[in-house]
Amino acid sequence: MKAATVSPQWQALESRIGHRFEDHHLLRQALTHRSAGRDNNERLEFLGDSLVNHVVAAQLFERFPDASEGQLTRLRSKLVRGTFLASLGRSLALAECLVLGAGERKSGGRHRDGILADTVEAVAGAVLLDAGYMTAASVVLAWFDEGLNTVELDDEKDSKTRLQEWLQARNAALPSYELREVLGPDHAQQFEVACHAEGLGSACVGRGSSRRHAEQEAATLALAALQDG
Amino acid sequence: MKAATVSPQWQALESRIGHRFEDHHLLRQALTHRSAGRDNNERLEFLGDSLVNHVVAAQLFERFPDASEGQLTRLRSKLVRGTFLASLGRSLALAECLVLGAGERKSGGRHRDGILADTVEAVAGAVLLDAGYMTAASVVLAWFDEGLNTVELDDEKDSKTRLQEWLQARNAALPSYELREVLGPDHAQQFEVACHAEGLGSACVGRGSSRRHAEQEAATLALAALQDG
Repeated sequence: MKAATVSPQWQALESRIGHRFEDHHLLRQALTHRSAGRDNNERLEFLGDSLVNHVVAAQLFERFPDASEGQLTRLRSKLVRGTFLASLGRSLALAECLVLGAGERKSGGRHRDGILADTVEAVAGAVLLDAGYMTAASVVLAWFDEGLNTVELDDEKDSKTRLQEWLQARNAALPSYELREVLGPDHAQQFEVACHAEGLGSACVGRGSSRRHAEQEAATLALAALQDG
Repeated sequence: MKAATVSPQWQALESRIGHRFEDHHLLRQALTHRSAGRDNNERLEFLGDSLVNHVVAAQLFERFPDASEGQLTRLRSKLVRGTFLASLGRSLALAECLVLGAGERKSGGRHRDGILADTVEAVAGAVLLDAGYMTAASVVLAWFDEGLNTVELDDEKDSKTRLQEWLQARNAALPSYELREVLGPDHAQQFEVACHAEGLGSACVGRGSSRRHAEQEAATLALAALQDG
């Protein structure tokens, strides 16, 4: 599709996205839900998902030089989870430009979180194919600017409490903690604790300079794994 | 650390990695397990994990133009799972260069899959910080070259069987499938099926042009979620 044939609606969308597409077929594909046919956005979503994850991870790494790996993991999961991506989709006003099958159109798919979130990722994938990594990374970063400015480091101290509350809210059994190993010389011991919880594929292992710290770390990892689904 | 002070052992390691570090502090940090102290590789692992995921995803997208999103997801999970990353760590001979605490040294941590896999990701993160995205992406791609050349698209048809076998091997309950919705006009119906299985945080939803296809897709996603832990 030549630039001259781009509708005002799409031009406005490109302004909100922050990128003028060279190849508008990519933009159309990114906006096309699988309900509308084979040439849909599922593959672009796969590509964009990994791009968004990496761009956000790299930015958090830079912005939070003192955050632990666990804290960074949780910060990222706040920013890349479906509900947050859907809110980005709303601020880009993607809904009006989505290409949906008849059933999805009628049932209000245009405004559904899942579809909006997937489309945000697909648009990121389309920008990557259209213009390369550097452009796509800066486009994605601009989308997340406000989120990155407002997201807050959590307190690592009460992960056990947070895990317990999360499980209780879902009527799941309470987690259990198992001391697996004590490593290192006496003056610099490292404790290794496994956290078992309903819904975890396997135990999450935390380490720390005390049993308590190791348990907190294990709870942190377990909660992140459960929240990531 | 100046280039002149780099030991022959590290020079050989840099050859295997495929990158000469400007800042050897980054390489040291990437090789340092948390058991050896605070200046360890955990944050670099977080960064490198997302880089490796994205680089592999982008490459699979390009190499398998006809693969579905589900097939791409499974291909990637084969290449970025711990056992595969650990095998990369062995081919880079990382073990001999690891910096471990006394306990891990004595208990053979040097050769443990988890430590090797984490270190591979941390080294990727260190290359990214040392030389930027383009260099890091090509370094990572070279590590995965053989894996990318040999990994094979799976058959989507028997995901239900594979999921069932996977659960049985872990003494878990059999999965159940629930038809949630039938969308679209009669001649182009889309079926939506949810797969419930032990160990899944939430149901995995598959869609397809028949109930059978939707179930296969749901099983595919459930298996990928379970395998990713």
